[in-house]
Amino acid sequence: MQKITYLENPIYFESFSAVGGYEEGRGPLGENFDFIDEKDLFGMKTWERAEAEMSRIALNTALKKVNLSPDDLNIIVAGDLQNQCVASSGGLFTFGVPFLGLYGACSTCTEGLLVLTAMLTSSKNYTRGASVTSSHNCAAERQFRTPIEYGGQRTPSAQWTATASGAFILSKEKHEAKITAFMPGKAIDGYTKDATNMGAAMALAAFDSIASFFQENNPDEYDLIITGDLGRIGSDILRELLREKIKGFGEKLASLHRDCGLLLYDKNIQDVHSGASGCGCSASVLASHVLPRVVSGEIKRVLFLSTGALMSASSVFQGDHILGIAPAIRIEHGTS
Amino acid sequence: MQKITYLENPIYFESFSAVGGYEEGRGPLGENFDFIDEKDLFGMKTWERAEAEMSRIALNTALKKVNLSPDDLNIIVAGDLQNQCVASSGGLFTFGVPFLGLYGACSTCTEGLLVLTAMLTSSKNYTRGASVTSSHNCAAERQFRTPIEYGGQRTPSAQWTATASGAFILSKEKHEAKITAFMPGKAIDGYTKDATNMGAAMALAAFDSIASFFQENNPDEYDLIITGDLGRIGSDILRELLREKIKGFGEKLASLHRDCGLLLYDKNIQDVHSGASGCGCSASVLASHVLPRVVSGEIKRVLFLSTGALMSASSVFQGDHILGIAPAIRIEHGTS
Repeated sequence: MQKITYLENPIYFESFSAVGGYEEGRGPLGENFDFIDEKDLFGMKTWERAEAEMSRIALNTALKKVNLSPDDLNIIVAGDLQNQCVASSGGLFTFGVPFLGLYGACSTCTEGLLVLTAMLTSSKNYTRGASVTSSHNCAAERQFRTPIEYGGQRTPSAQWTATASGAFILSKEKHEAKITAFMPGKAIDGYTKDATNMGAAMALAAFDSIASFFQENNPDEYDLIITGDLGRIGSDILRELLREKIKGFGEKLASLHRDCGLLLYDKNIQDVHSGASGCGCSASVLASHVLPRVVSGEIKRVLFLSTGALMSASSVFQGDHILGIAPAIRIEHGTS
Repeated sequence: MQKITYLENPIYFESFSAVGGYEEGRGPLGENFDFIDEKDLFGMKTWERAEAEMSRIALNTALKKVNLSPDDLNIIVAGDLQNQCVASSGGLFTFGVPFLGLYGACSTCTEGLLVLTAMLTSSKNYTRGASVTSSHNCAAERQFRTPIEYGGQRTPSAQWTATASGAFILSKEKHEAKITAFMPGKAIDGYTKDATNMGAAMALAAFDSIASFFQENNPDEYDLIITGDLGRIGSDILRELLREKIKGFGEKLASLHRDCGLLLYDKNIQDVHSGASGCGCSASVLASHVLPRVVSGEIKRVLFLSTGALMSASSVFQGDHILGIAPAIRIEHGTS
């Protein structure tokens, strides 16, 4: 049984931003992004540095929206998919703010918001911090698969790593969207070694977290349950599990479910196979699509779970199963 | 100015364990380790899996010492040096406990204790958790440099990645050693691109954290300041900086300084060049050497800062500077 932390004092979203590349710009959420670089390079010479710069732009944009300077932040938590998470440290160290690096694969957006919420809650001295995550399609292809210039064939179950970053400034001051509960996920065996089908590997973890959370929460009080990047295959597995395994309200949970990996691109015009993935997927969808609707009151209460596949090129080569993980936060509308 | 969190309610070390390999076993702290595998393989067939198994043994040992089961843990935070931190997730997921993955390079031991302390402090629901970090010499050599079978020459400034893991169980129940304050470090430009001299790259970050901390703390009230793995060169740089840059009590700070990278091995009989490094270095020295002396009361109060070099093979190839980071925790003797 996973323990849920319900916050006596919510932590508020003071600002947020979404930055992306070409595919993200022409997708259905593109016009809600704060910045798009159609060349995917963000002025840099390598994909790896482009990702670092993208995360810097994302945080800078979130700061500027509310006229804050880096000195107003007590802490930055951040993570990405590059080996040793160098996109985050390399892109964000210039802000000169205390830094915590995280690794939760594509679940890092929610993990970061969760850890930042805990940091702010645990310390009177801390009033405001930022959580930033990013992924870059070409950096990920080169590192995990082959450089895109090789033109490798992708399987139908493969997902498209988003070139995107989302930055979130959390504060103890009241704003229109808030985090009211969190629950770290368990790392769970995805029972697959197939690195071209990450959605399937993560579906069990998403199911585990959702099932745990709604053992003590009423789904009728929720507008949406949003997962990070299960994609088409993983989402189908999750909904099937919810319907079959949860007595009484599995159908309700399945009907509330949306997946950022299916929201970021338009499958009819974009060749992304099973959908979007990457640390930047759920982060940019949260910033460009979900939070604006929470702020407006269109969404009153949502359970948000980025999903991560815990594996490396080495672990796959050595025959290890891919693990999934799905940390969760509850986001609500309102300042009280 | 970095913000220090002073805990109204300390978080206590309920149990801890150190596990290591051949070099760690024959080093000066070897007899204090809880488990040594002289073959460095821990029953596995690859170095990568050996590291995962080592971290599993470390946590299992820490649990057994105090007759706890995994179900008694609300959360595990963990990290390592392998790409995508697969040693931690792969070694610890079998405990079935909610999991937060961290990446702070060799600073992950302190980062993990800090994040776990924040998690426990932020939630009434959380009473006990574990922080685990590991590194494996052969896994690190293969990933960052060349497989050891190649017999690559090491530079005099190079450090020896420890084959070691440290596991810590933190609790709100009173025990003889406690965490009373924490301060995340800043990611700071180490002004070097030399991946064979990590100590130098991390020395500035250690200096920054120590200088920040003692702007509002009195060094006369501290028995020791312990850094993670600056090694010989980094330690020399740090002490020189403390003496030169801090007016009034720089010499005092320098005299309090010890480095886990210089404590783990005996330079006279072990060919480790500038000293030990790796996530497992500071973790195993904390568990085998520092905490037992805090529990006994020999050490009353210590500032403990694991040090991390934020870089990857790719970032070094692309000419990026290596960044350093040094999160800090204050550890004190006593149950009150």
